[in-house]
Amino acid sequence: MLCGMLTMLLLLQAAAPAPAAPAKAPSEIVAAAPASDWVDIAPDDLLVMQLAPDRDGAARKVVIQLMPPPFSQPWIANIRTLAKAHWWDGTAVTRVQDNYVAQWGDPTEKKPLPAGLMKASERAYMTVIPKPAENRLSRFRYPDPYSRGTLFDSGWPLAFELIHDVPVVDQNGRPMPPSTTRNAWPVHCYGMVGVGRNMPPDAGTGAELYTVIGHAPRHLDRNIALVGRVVEGIENLSSLPRGTGPLGVYEKPEQRVPIASIRLASEQPAAARPHLQYLSTESASFAAYADARANRRDAFFIVPAGGADICNIPVPIRRKP
Amino acid sequence: MLCGMLTMLLLLQAAAPAPAAPAKAPSEIVAAAPASDWVDIAPDDLLVMQLAPDRDGAARKVVIQLMPPPFSQPWIANIRTLAKAHWWDGTAVTRVQDNYVAQWGDPTEKKPLPAGLMKASERAYMTVIPKPAENRLSRFRYPDPYSRGTLFDSGWPLAFELIHDVPVVDQNGRPMPPSTTRNAWPVHCYGMVGVGRNMPPDAGTGAELYTVIGHAPRHLDRNIALVGRVVEGIENLSSLPRGTGPLGVYEKPEQRVPIASIRLASEQPAAARPHLQYLSTESASFAAYADARANRRDAFFIVPAGGADICNIPVPIRRKP
Repeated sequence: MLCGMLTMLLLLQAAAPAPAAPAKAPSEIVAAAPASDWVDIAPDDLLVMQLAPDRDGAARKVVIQLMPPPFSQPWIANIRTLAKAHWWDGTAVTRVQDNYVAQWGDPTEKKPLPAGLMKASERAYMTVIPKPAENRLSRFRYPDPYSRGTLFDSGWPLAFELIHDVPVVDQNGRPMPPSTTRNAWPVHCYGMVGVGRNMPPDAGTGAELYTVIGHAPRHLDRNIALVGRVVEGIENLSSLPRGTGPLGVYEKPEQRVPIASIRLASEQPAAARPHLQYLSTESASFAAYADARANRRDAFFIVPAGGADICNIPVPIRRKP
Repeated sequence: MLCGMLTMLLLLQAAAPAPAAPAKAPSEIVAAAPASDWVDIAPDDLLVMQLAPDRDGAARKVVIQLMPPPFSQPWIANIRTLAKAHWWDGTAVTRVQDNYVAQWGDPTEKKPLPAGLMKASERAYMTVIPKPAENRLSRFRYPDPYSRGTLFDSGWPLAFELIHDVPVVDQNGRPMPPSTTRNAWPVHCYGMVGVGRNMPPDAGTGAELYTVIGHAPRHLDRNIALVGRVVEGIENLSSLPRGTGPLGVYEKPEQRVPIASIRLASEQPAAARPHLQYLSTESASFAAYADARANRRDAFFIVPAGGADICNIPVPIRRKP
């Protein structure tokens, strides 16, 4: 039916030049993306956080997607270990700072950690990745005040330095050829999840996590490990009351929001698992979506911006139809 | 006492070169700014919005600073007219969309408007302003993906085009000399307040307002009039429950948050008025603060970003001591 209509439209266009159709809004481009442009998120990459019900008894669930290799792998391994140990059950959201972050973990900071956690180094905040194909890079060429440039890779927003900006070596300490590598790192956009830490060289374990609930605090890039992003239920964190102590800490224990449980979806019964997909950032649909976000030509707009920052192009997520 | 200690420190430093002191955090630079770097906000530029108390009976107040000339003046005149007519009393916050905006106005869209409102044109979204002195501009020279450049002027974040980018004429239609003018507009940072509108050429009256509660939606710049910013109590809007209808509209009337009143501070009894100040964006303190936001060298940080976007440098506001 849809194909039939499309053919008819094409025929009409061939018969007589029609007036330019209003440009599609980004949401319309995403809605029209073919099933093949959507990528399933593996159950082992999904964390399901169940908060205590709200005052009206409504359930509050937050789903987090963990980053794939090569980024932040020591912390992400720790997070899987902590989830499998049910370590977060009975912990709480401990601080909510307006236009910044909501953070959760053990308020006592004394709960023993499970065995087998890895110690991560500050160096792991960045990763050497192969230089992406130019046609992929060219989809996001707007200037970035925080880095040499930004790009999307396998569904994630990244910033990079070029190889000639910094000395880069491989894992054996050998210099890597400039034509094939760049130094990249994930960026602090709204909803990204990171690892709380104390002063360096402490790099955190992953037991203390936060998510961004305001304007992108990009100054944290390369200074804190990012491990994932909230893909469903962010409003259950972003609309929490702000804490009144320094850094938004809840001053009274009863103000904290109890965490009933955090589980990997892969450990949940199959019927309970969330089934989510992201729009492939390597797809033509995503390229059209990103272009439309940077150049709004749909009816509401008068002046297209002619550019965008990477955090204003959130990667579309949906429930698998 | 503080001065005594400072003198002592200076003497110690003179005696022997001390190790480099840790760099100041942006908040420390702001706290150390002299009184002369702070600018009083005039009572006629402050709107005080009183929401209905929350479920625990706590008062909820939001204070908004209106922009000074030359920006968005038709709408700002309308807003003063609406406030003086007590037009917003009994209206409500009608939609809250996560990572976007909280919006308020008359849910029926039928409440008669007071006499004397001006009709604004789309052209008023931008303003020709004198080219700022180079030393002021140079304080914020990081690239902006949305414009030719950004700057702070008289306390407000702006973006601009250079005169040679667009034809610019004065109010009599005469071309303006390229060396003295630029086309500038305020930008949609967190907490900025704008004028809701329908499809263009409608440009809104100012009766329907919103504030940004997420990542800066800079694609709205030059497409909607900005009239001010929330300077106190943003958490009373940003932490409201998100609406579940399209665009975050509250689907049930009882979910709306009633507005008890909106008043200009200049119409309040002197004892009730808020006394607020902003850090002069032309001051040395602000220059140091902006530089520190873009290059965090305080103890927590490992890698300074080397840049910032203008919305990640919020203009400091304080209660007048």
